[in-house]
Amino acid sequence: MTRPGGANRVAPLDRAELHGSLGDPVLTSIAFLNEIMSRFPDAISFAPGAPHLRFLRDLDVHRHVDRYVDHLCAERGLPPGQARRLLYEYGPSRGLITDLVSEALRDQGIDVPPEAVVITVGAQEAMVLTLRALCRSADEALAVVTPCFVGILGAARLLDIDVVGVGESGHGLDLEQLAAACRAARAGGRRIRAVYVAPDYANPSGTRLDLPTRLRLLDLAEQEDLFLLEDSAYWFTALPEAEIPMLKALDTAARVIHIGTFAKLCLPGARVGFAVADQFVRTKDGRYRRLADDLADLKTMLTVNTSPICQAIVGGMLLEHGGSMARLGREKAALYRRNLANLLSALEKQVPRDGEVSWNHPEGGFFVRMRLPIPADTALLELSASKYRVLWTPMSPFHLDAAGANELRLSCSYLDPEQIEEGVGRLAEFLRNIAT
Amino acid sequence: MTRPGGANRVAPLDRAELHGSLGDPVLTSIAFLNEIMSRFPDAISFAPGAPHLRFLRDLDVHRHVDRYVDHLCAERGLPPGQARRLLYEYGPSRGLITDLVSEALRDQGIDVPPEAVVITVGAQEAMVLTLRALCRSADEALAVVTPCFVGILGAARLLDIDVVGVGESGHGLDLEQLAAACRAARAGGRRIRAVYVAPDYANPSGTRLDLPTRLRLLDLAEQEDLFLLEDSAYWFTALPEAEIPMLKALDTAARVIHIGTFAKLCLPGARVGFAVADQFVRTKDGRYRRLADDLADLKTMLTVNTSPICQAIVGGMLLEHGGSMARLGREKAALYRRNLANLLSALEKQVPRDGEVSWNHPEGGFFVRMRLPIPADTALLELSASKYRVLWTPMSPFHLDAAGANELRLSCSYLDPEQIEEGVGRLAEFLRNIAT
Repeated sequence: MTRPGGANRVAPLDRAELHGSLGDPVLTSIAFLNEIMSRFPDAISFAPGAPHLRFLRDLDVHRHVDRYVDHLCAERGLPPGQARRLLYEYGPSRGLITDLVSEALRDQGIDVPPEAVVITVGAQEAMVLTLRALCRSADEALAVVTPCFVGILGAARLLDIDVVGVGESGHGLDLEQLAAACRAARAGGRRIRAVYVAPDYANPSGTRLDLPTRLRLLDLAEQEDLFLLEDSAYWFTALPEAEIPMLKALDTAARVIHIGTFAKLCLPGARVGFAVADQFVRTKDGRYRRLADDLADLKTMLTVNTSPICQAIVGGMLLEHGGSMARLGREKAALYRRNLANLLSALEKQVPRDGEVSWNHPEGGFFVRMRLPIPADTALLELSASKYRVLWTPMSPFHLDAAGANELRLSCSYLDPEQIEEGVGRLAEFLRNIAT
Repeated sequence: MTRPGGANRVAPLDRAELHGSLGDPVLTSIAFLNEIMSRFPDAISFAPGAPHLRFLRDLDVHRHVDRYVDHLCAERGLPPGQARRLLYEYGPSRGLITDLVSEALRDQGIDVPPEAVVITVGAQEAMVLTLRALCRSADEALAVVTPCFVGILGAARLLDIDVVGVGESGHGLDLEQLAAACRAARAGGRRIRAVYVAPDYANPSGTRLDLPTRLRLLDLAEQEDLFLLEDSAYWFTALPEAEIPMLKALDTAARVIHIGTFAKLCLPGARVGFAVADQFVRTKDGRYRRLADDLADLKTMLTVNTSPICQAIVGGMLLEHGGSMARLGREKAALYRRNLANLLSALEKQVPRDGEVSWNHPEGGFFVRMRLPIPADTALLELSASKYRVLWTPMSPFHLDAAGANELRLSCSYLDPEQIEEGVGRLAEFLRNIAT
């Protein structure tokens, strides 16, 4: 034996050069935010888009698992031990709770069978699976509405899929720019295959698409042969009387793949999301099956299946609310709307409207978008944190180009009213001083 | 409004042709096995490589979560409520229990800091992340020892990475063929970037690499500038006195990326695995960081993080066994060795050794590899199921070429001794009849 076991010396790979650091601007930005938050623990942070801790404080995941096990017993006629074991074994790659999700989606006008649903490890895996299924050659690009949720950019990057940015307009999405991007792609021998859009209070812009824009987007998708990836993370924060049908509910031509998450409705730590993909796909032997079947097959190659225990937590929470996502989200939605109203009214009171600083007024979601007269970069964030003890997220990592350099994102989901009030006070002082 | 909401008619996409059914031979084979198992519920199945139900029957995941929460409180000085909330929120992409895993790996002679560990959604995600980090151009291929665990083939397929098969030899891996494959790749302007190998009782062959072969493989990796992806799923089933150091424990040149799973040691339903990647990687700005950092960054784009609740289940189980994977696996290993011994002795007693039918004699793992005089295909499996009520797995989906057509895999992990005895009796009758 020429080598001693046990010792594990590590040599830098200066010869076998690995494909170095990813150098992702988003990850760099998140790392910087985390670092700055740890340096200024007394700062009030409008940065994290995380659920309010109040909803996690009294969460009893054991109870929810038990509730789901009871349901399994009743539904499938299983003895309790056997139902519980189903959570501990490998499970079907499409998931255990597809029936509950399919049922729950009816509230939102989405009428699909359980077979059209795939349960995923958060919305993130749903995005990866969908992009992998749709974009298969280097010529097939993804369009995104910018500023854009960084998760979809990461998913595209992971799969080496080109991304084309399309700006927002007064109606939330510049349809003419999207049509022009499709034409430009074709002229270059390429193709826009799908468009990522978060119609309800998008992260990070807070933008919502009105109904006419949704309908025109669906028409354009049909015309240009596009798929729409609808991310619905924040829909539940809308006032019931102000709800606008989801793209998927308006989708008569199977153009929409709907992506959902239980991170905000239930808890992030379960890592449960889903994709709705009822499109029919022609197989090599000329038969048809659902796109969801392709996603489930791809999932066997990615994570095998979503933890059935985590699915049971979410399933139990759904069942406790009569199987309705809207009911599950009602109390949370009220708190988030209150926070948002507090943030907007505090800004109104404390930040002078002098044309230099402006912000939008979303009616739901977690985020407000603010424009400054100067770049909202990391240097400015450092100043904001160190001198004014208030944090926010620079908007530029959410853009594909230099746009948004002067913008920042304010999130209020995580905070209490007093923190919002105090935080806006600090922000106002900071803004007064940078303006001069 | 020109479209009614709510109705969701689905049109086949015969025009916008989607990239049809994946037509994966492995998935087709699994689907066929599932289908045949449901048609013959009274058949004894040597097909599933799943953990024995006995270990899931009395599992109390709540207790394990509570145990881990206690540990978090003690370790980090957190009040219980706060520790529990850590499980419900988003968590670090590299995972919460990297310290426990790093500590546990010392038993196996693997001495790496927690920063070299990334907790993943099962071993499957660890494979995807590792392949994505290592193989970045179409010229960089993966070599696998065949027959081969289908998960790595799926991961490579998902990422469009070319796979080159290398056969087994008397020592478990044909090193000369591997060296020749490296030379052939270079001659063709390509490169074998990494080799997937399961040194301890591989799935599906049951093969184990002896120590000299492990050392020669490490030398070859150094010589040919290869990384070794070591899959350690079945190591714990080895008799303690018969343990051979893992590749990672012998790895003095940071050639090995070690991939582990808690599916067999704890439970499949937690979907927790890990990658050990202590290699140093040069970043674009000339600094070094660990490959594990790259994997954690890639993970933010794939699943964000592994459910902290699931990590807590595994963490609690580890803690209950003094933080040792070996102790955690001891009772299970004894049962699996007993099953394997029963299977081998029943075969010895009941199946005539006439040179037509043969099988190997692994000392650990879940699997025995058997050779028949005729193709072990789906038609033969159908016959075996319908007439003899015994099931097994055809080996051909585990191969990249036509090799293995006459082979099948027998798994005994899931069965009880009486089922094994009875199942081998049925198998013997089946084999007698196909031989004539």
